[in-house]
Amino acid sequence: MQLPNPIGWTPAGAIRLLDQTLLPGEERYLELDSVESVAEAIRSLRVRGAPLIGIAAAMGVALAGPGGAERVRAAVVTLGATRPTAVNLHWALRRMERRAERAAMLGEELAPALRAEAQAIWDEDRAMCERIGALGAPLVPAGATVATICNAGVLATGGIGTALAPIYHLHRAGRGPRVVVPETRPLLQGSRLTAWELSRAGVECTLIADGMIASRFRLGDVACALVGADRIAANGDVANKIGTYGLALAAKAHGVPLYVLAPTSTIDPAVPDGASIPIELRGADEVTGFRGVRAAADGVAAWNPAFDVTPAELVTAIVTDRGVVPPGQISRLMD
Amino acid sequence: MQLPNPIGWTPAGAIRLLDQTLLPGEERYLELDSVESVAEAIRSLRVRGAPLIGIAAAMGVALAGPGGAERVRAAVVTLGATRPTAVNLHWALRRMERRAERAAMLGEELAPALRAEAQAIWDEDRAMCERIGALGAPLVPAGATVATICNAGVLATGGIGTALAPIYHLHRAGRGPRVVVPETRPLLQGSRLTAWELSRAGVECTLIADGMIASRFRLGDVACALVGADRIAANGDVANKIGTYGLALAAKAHGVPLYVLAPTSTIDPAVPDGASIPIELRGADEVTGFRGVRAAADGVAAWNPAFDVTPAELVTAIVTDRGVVPPGQISRLMD
Repeated sequence: MQLPNPIGWTPAGAIRLLDQTLLPGEERYLELDSVESVAEAIRSLRVRGAPLIGIAAAMGVALAGPGGAERVRAAVVTLGATRPTAVNLHWALRRMERRAERAAMLGEELAPALRAEAQAIWDEDRAMCERIGALGAPLVPAGATVATICNAGVLATGGIGTALAPIYHLHRAGRGPRVVVPETRPLLQGSRLTAWELSRAGVECTLIADGMIASRFRLGDVACALVGADRIAANGDVANKIGTYGLALAAKAHGVPLYVLAPTSTIDPAVPDGASIPIELRGADEVTGFRGVRAAADGVAAWNPAFDVTPAELVTAIVTDRGVVPPGQISRLMD
Repeated sequence: MQLPNPIGWTPAGAIRLLDQTLLPGEERYLELDSVESVAEAIRSLRVRGAPLIGIAAAMGVALAGPGGAERVRAAVVTLGATRPTAVNLHWALRRMERRAERAAMLGEELAPALRAEAQAIWDEDRAMCERIGALGAPLVPAGATVATICNAGVLATGGIGTALAPIYHLHRAGRGPRVVVPETRPLLQGSRLTAWELSRAGVECTLIADGMIASRFRLGDVACALVGADRIAANGDVANKIGTYGLALAAKAHGVPLYVLAPTSTIDPAVPDGASIPIELRGADEVTGFRGVRAAADGVAAWNPAFDVTPAELVTAIVTDRGVVPPGQISRLMD
């Protein structure tokens, strides 16, 4: 199974980053040797997916290590300003900051300590993905066809993904499911990223337009749907990529189980329910066109929420690195 | 209210046709003075929408009138081979053929008789649209926001459309609803055609991606959904553009009434239910790309059904030029 490496170190100690904005047309790897170039890559969505953003930012801080404590503090500020709403980004930066402080206290050499810490963040994320894959795999019948949406795979994490983790887990064991991939307008993460990484790994996949999901479930060959999450409220309501809610309604209508797979850190106990989750509204041009090609006439208004909320009653189970529970029992997964 | 004219006669007697493949970027009118050029326009989807195809084909036959009966018969064959599955096309061609035969029997001049017949087909379609508009308008609350899908408007008919007819009817009366328009992937008839013709007419519309429909219904501002139909089975199941079924499930979940608007001729009493309606599967490239821009990697497979079936129980009422009935009572609309 050949998985792409969205991030890595070069022999010289720079960051080797797959530029996801060019996929699938071009597989170009950038060599980033400065904090500013990492910040630009996060800002421009060359690297995306909450866990992977956290890893990239931690590696970016490590690049500043040889420059000393002052440079490290500046790196944290620069990288923290790239995408202010991404939770993993700030969690990773705080962790790097604390590690720098501890190195100073203990008189350790700064650069290797920070590089090891960034590597630890990455390794832990990879392990988290593996646990989600192992816990989710038994939910997928042997030889099944499953559906997903958007990209919650290798290109979004430091490992085998979240929603796609059970698929890779089974594929490695020779029991690979087939995957139905909605293209996920407006930014087409399904066709651009998910279909690309599944094909690269040798997993059989079929692309559909988002409006075909309900018909595909009626066809009767989809055993279950595996989706990621951007935030899970205390009552089990799930915010995820726009389109997930419609997929969930269609799954319910056809008795297709819907599993939400995400790190435990995605659960936000401070948010009581889905109605309290703020939904980011993005610009009209993403809906009126694609990659600079216009589909609608100039001046046509568009509504463009980036996420939607799937109510807990449409979710069969939530899978995190700590276990599989019905959405009403996610408190069991918290500390 | 300024509506586009997708078809017309030039002063010299040629057909003036709006090339819909270039919309919305360019509003180019073709002058077609030969049967072959009309056939090419139908084949290439420069003119589309079942009623409008029928009108264009009838006008194409009329072009052959001055050439005599032999040329007319050849025109019917040529035009009939353009899109073999479109019902209105063949109905219109049979009607033109019969008119030519009657002219020969009565010793009438052929060319003016055929031109008048084509005009009658167009006029009748325009009147049918008006009746659907008048019958459908009372279903839309004053000042409401409504949803639609694909294009069942001016660009699909010889008049004010089918699904969009009540909207234009109300707009002329100064009580214009606002319209939420899903872009309708893969061919984007929503963004390319519906948003364009509504904007031209001064009707306020908002474009969304197809995956946003369920979230939009949850927002609570959509009073009802108005959609067209490609075929209605005897039990009231409705085949329409892919995405309609998912829209119908989301409408049901949020208590949004779903109205299907179509000519009475769309009802096919020979087909007992939706499962018996053949669904056209189209090529993968429509899904893997976006107006010629590739979205998925080469070799990625796609499933591309052009239509889906909405079961009768999700349809609030069917509106034809003969009346408004629940889907279980469409036999009342037949002769």
